[in-house]
Amino acid sequence: MNGLSRRKPIIALAMGDPAGISPELTAKLTALEEIRNATNLIVIGDRRVFDEGARVAGIEPDLRTVAPGANLTMADGAIFVDLAHLDPRTIERGVANKAGGEFALANYRHALTLARNGQANAVCFTPFNKKAMRLARGDYDDEIAFSAEVVGLTTPASEFNVLGKLWNARVTSHIALKDVSSRLSTERIHRALTLTDTCMRRAGFENPRIAVAALNPHAGDGGNFGREEIDIIEPAVLAGREDGIAVDGPFPADTVFLRTKDGAFDAVLTMYHDQGQIAMKLMGFDRGVTLLGGFPFPICTPAHGTAYDIAGRGVASIGAAREALMLSVDMSMRR
Amino acid sequence: MNGLSRRKPIIALAMGDPAGISPELTAKLTALEEIRNATNLIVIGDRRVFDEGARVAGIEPDLRTVAPGANLTMADGAIFVDLAHLDPRTIERGVANKAGGEFALANYRHALTLARNGQANAVCFTPFNKKAMRLARGDYDDEIAFSAEVVGLTTPASEFNVLGKLWNARVTSHIALKDVSSRLSTERIHRALTLTDTCMRRAGFENPRIAVAALNPHAGDGGNFGREEIDIIEPAVLAGREDGIAVDGPFPADTVFLRTKDGAFDAVLTMYHDQGQIAMKLMGFDRGVTLLGGFPFPICTPAHGTAYDIAGRGVASIGAAREALMLSVDMSMRR
Repeated sequence: MNGLSRRKPIIALAMGDPAGISPELTAKLTALEEIRNATNLIVIGDRRVFDEGARVAGIEPDLRTVAPGANLTMADGAIFVDLAHLDPRTIERGVANKAGGEFALANYRHALTLARNGQANAVCFTPFNKKAMRLARGDYDDEIAFSAEVVGLTTPASEFNVLGKLWNARVTSHIALKDVSSRLSTERIHRALTLTDTCMRRAGFENPRIAVAALNPHAGDGGNFGREEIDIIEPAVLAGREDGIAVDGPFPADTVFLRTKDGAFDAVLTMYHDQGQIAMKLMGFDRGVTLLGGFPFPICTPAHGTAYDIAGRGVASIGAAREALMLSVDMSMRR
Repeated sequence: MNGLSRRKPIIALAMGDPAGISPELTAKLTALEEIRNATNLIVIGDRRVFDEGARVAGIEPDLRTVAPGANLTMADGAIFVDLAHLDPRTIERGVANKAGGEFALANYRHALTLARNGQANAVCFTPFNKKAMRLARGDYDDEIAFSAEVVGLTTPASEFNVLGKLWNARVTSHIALKDVSSRLSTERIHRALTLTDTCMRRAGFENPRIAVAALNPHAGDGGNFGREEIDIIEPAVLAGREDGIAVDGPFPADTVFLRTKDGAFDAVLTMYHDQGQIAMKLMGFDRGVTLLGGFPFPICTPAHGTAYDIAGRGVASIGAAREALMLSVDMSMRR
């Protein structure tokens, strides 16, 4: 290893759901020159499943296989950690099942453990299938909860959606809409704001401009359609500003994304899941990246799903997966 | 009047807020050949304000002025009903005030009354300013409530957002987000669905394909994040189908607009204001039309606002206002 390659961040890349496009995406990623130049990759999965993915993707894999627990500190180029836990002949493409969930969970857990132990600078994974994850682990909630458990994280973490230079964070996520208001507090919004600011600085924004979305239509219309803006959200915005965060709002949710798209802000902090997701998906978020922020290392994945309908045909676009990997590289370099 | 022109629908066009772009838009509309060929226009306002709008727009108005209460049955071409109630020298451009609200309300009331009395087939108006409307009338809620009062409507009415061929209707509107769930009922959703189907048929859809949006993230994820989909929305969809409506759902709100945009549906029925507005505005709804449906005649207005920032410069785009007028013409012809 020369001085230059020593500075390349090590990314632990976990293979996702084996029944979808994850195997071919993983294989394609390892073959990209841009990625090989920027990072030392540690791919985690079953080598046979990976090789089948490489065959589908039409690429010649160039990475040596090691057993789990092998000494990885000499990593240069790409290494494959073979958990040898899934025979590709047992995979039914396009079907979410328990074995697929167990495969993805084991790979992801291994990747998180490497990063936790300082053997990798960041974690990436190709798409999971939520149903398969739940079949494998009944109490599986989402990636945040699972990752926090594996890493032993007790401080706040949050999902960020990144589309080009536009970020979206949210205060609440997978809860019933009727519970959103009661879950909001000035403290919680302020915490989300702080985490957004911190993560964006780690991703290279010098002074990220954050717009906070209102909860109610017309931002509550001065209290006529709800008072959360006045009682809860505005105080959080003011508290953020006192901390030196470049934050403004709350703005009506139906125009804040237009303004952000036009360059007025770098990020939108939304109060609930669909508020941001409706906008992000319309703007093409399937080409975007999901970042789990708040962990001691970046965790990135493409925003799109397992695409069961096109699995095994080699036509899956690499775009978002490449962006996810390059974001994790970029954030690792800045730490 | 020959046989052909007798079949032209009569549209009562009320001048909106005088401090914004409404005067120039109104003047521009009366000069469009497409509109003059398709309709007999009755413009309602103050002739002096209108003439100032025509000067700004750079058009030579070609419509005779009559006093309110004049016999309008001989209308051919465009007529101006001069309420003579606002001196243009008193208007401060870009400022919402009581006189402006009173002006717009009086014009709109007059237009609604003409249509109610059978002297016009539809009503259109150029943009109102909500603040000015409230200054003029403390209890002003929205156009629906005001119109229902003037017309004496006791059956359900609703606002529709129309962007090209894509329609959006909503079950709840200007209420706090925390109250949305408790305001939803199978009956209410079914009623909104029926009204959407009826209005779209009146606008020329033979069998409109309506997608119903879910309330909760991931459509409630099978009850994990809220049960409204299962308990309230699905039964309404089934009831609509039993009526012969081409309805499907509930679909996750963050993908239903993508599918509709791609042509899978003609309309989305959303559960709350921002759910539809975030999507519609991102798709360019400022170029769209707002239709008040459920009245005995169509009521249409451009979706954009008074654009105080560009008022008086003659640069306002006529696109959405022309679409609003042509939709009201089209719907009048089909009645």
